[in-house]
Amino acid sequence: MRSVFLSNGSIKQLDIPKPVASKAETLVKVTMAGICNTDLELVKGYMGFEGVPGHEFVGVVAEAQDSNLVGRRVCGEINFGCGDCDECLKGLQRHCPSRTVLGILNQNGAFADFVTIPETKLRFVPDSVTDRQAVFVEPVAAAMEILEQVHVEPNQQVAVVGDGKLGLLICQVLKLTGCELCLIGKHARKLEMAENWGVRALHKDLAGQQQFDLVVEASGSPSGFETALALLRPRGTLVLKSTYAGNLEFDAAPIVINEITLVGSRCGPFKPAIRTLSENRIDTEALIDGVFPFSEALPAFERAAQPGTLKIVLDLNV
Amino acid sequence: MRSVFLSNGSIKQLDIPKPVASKAETLVKVTMAGICNTDLELVKGYMGFEGVPGHEFVGVVAEAQDSNLVGRRVCGEINFGCGDCDECLKGLQRHCPSRTVLGILNQNGAFADFVTIPETKLRFVPDSVTDRQAVFVEPVAAAMEILEQVHVEPNQQVAVVGDGKLGLLICQVLKLTGCELCLIGKHARKLEMAENWGVRALHKDLAGQQQFDLVVEASGSPSGFETALALLRPRGTLVLKSTYAGNLEFDAAPIVINEITLVGSRCGPFKPAIRTLSENRIDTEALIDGVFPFSEALPAFERAAQPGTLKIVLDLNV
Repeated sequence: MRSVFLSNGSIKQLDIPKPVASKAETLVKVTMAGICNTDLELVKGYMGFEGVPGHEFVGVVAEAQDSNLVGRRVCGEINFGCGDCDECLKGLQRHCPSRTVLGILNQNGAFADFVTIPETKLRFVPDSVTDRQAVFVEPVAAAMEILEQVHVEPNQQVAVVGDGKLGLLICQVLKLTGCELCLIGKHARKLEMAENWGVRALHKDLAGQQQFDLVVEASGSPSGFETALALLRPRGTLVLKSTYAGNLEFDAAPIVINEITLVGSRCGPFKPAIRTLSENRIDTEALIDGVFPFSEALPAFERAAQPGTLKIVLDLNV
Repeated sequence: MRSVFLSNGSIKQLDIPKPVASKAETLVKVTMAGICNTDLELVKGYMGFEGVPGHEFVGVVAEAQDSNLVGRRVCGEINFGCGDCDECLKGLQRHCPSRTVLGILNQNGAFADFVTIPETKLRFVPDSVTDRQAVFVEPVAAAMEILEQVHVEPNQQVAVVGDGKLGLLICQVLKLTGCELCLIGKHARKLEMAENWGVRALHKDLAGQQQFDLVVEASGSPSGFETALALLRPRGTLVLKSTYAGNLEFDAAPIVINEITLVGSRCGPFKPAIRTLSENRIDTEALIDGVFPFSEALPAFERAAQPGTLKIVLDLNV
């Protein structure tokens, strides 16, 4: 089958054997898959991953022990826990210390014609969600993780720092709470997009002196972290959605003096993400900057890596 | 009146005029005052403070508009807010942006025969709390701030990193919750003290692989921060009680990947601190390494600055 294969710090298109599903797994024929910033980081060496990347996907079940599953449109949770440890027993498979992560850690991902997904990790995609929407289930879930971790009150003043594709999804998800929302970014096109969604948008150089109850840092740059910290009122909360290459260095005294809460945030719940997409509450179409046939996966990666690019999607049907 | 006076990075004993209380203030005759690490930091230049330090004290009201107050044994809140801003109106005077802080920021403190305290900031000390206990009201309140910010569950595994005087107070306050508590430190004498309180005590070199739900960093050293971070289970909470000189530098990726919550924590509520001391639930006596007459305040500061020293108290009666 066709695949995008990562090894030794570079990707190529490679024909590899179709995977064989174990008894607990299903074989899914991939229809569409989105390129995430994490995929670009993997190519640079993040996580030391080798194999098939890709964790934002939609497909159709091709083989399963339960024949009722065959033909169902699905996406899949991406963290596969052991099922037995303390974290798994608490329902937090995504924090299982021996987990595999689809296309990120010890588990081939969805940039291939077929991918194996444990039956328990399948999530059905309703007809009301198109394939183009469904590739956003995983990142919308990651944005919704913020709402699972932090109580966002409708009367709060909230800022998102970073106008990349994740920042723009986070804006849309936070906007659902009724909070007073501000996006701080640097791309006129994206700031305008946010304003169309009713989000106040500010260029980062004009962020000024306003103090926010909650700031989400999604810029991916250490300077974004400092910007975010400076925007918080005392006792405010900073949600860290970005991972940074290398160390973060900052003056921690204001965190103690102003009693700031800092919350690391990663993967999120699929069920409300699918529900919200099916209700058309998230504008994913505006976030797609290109759909490439799978045969052009390498140019697609190049395009995705260009600064300022929003979502690039691979179409496995062609 | 006698005072300990800080200017140009050094302290001396100095006779200064007795302060005059405004209409909203009371004049308090100081009985005893404790030397805090913050006082030692002030001498090194922290906050750029000049004047009379001292914020852990007990005394007797000498002058007040309300004559019923005269003669009452009191301690005092240390953050004096403007009373009008958003923070003050939320009851968070300790986060008022234009606050003064007793003996720390634009407000002379308690290392003097008399100190002025706003009438609304007086806290009465019951007869059941001795002067030697009462000098601990402020640091016990700071330890209790953790319980105000974080829900500590009795079934949780909790660690305190740092066996200094604040760390030992925090141990005693956290122990009240019924949680499974471990102190990680480096001084045999202090670790033994904690074990006498029913706290498991570990030398930091033996901290090992256990994972905690909640870790309180009270060591004051950046290496303590890294130790604390490494002890957390996924989704665990790290309470930062220390401020660090200079910048903190660390790899922030585990905070995001493991969805760690980091909570800065500073001053706390006096009322439950006084109540808990009055019920003899906190062993403050074990934490006193010396009581010096006020005439020996400078040697007392020297003693307090020696590594490993617990609380040094100044007795203003002599």
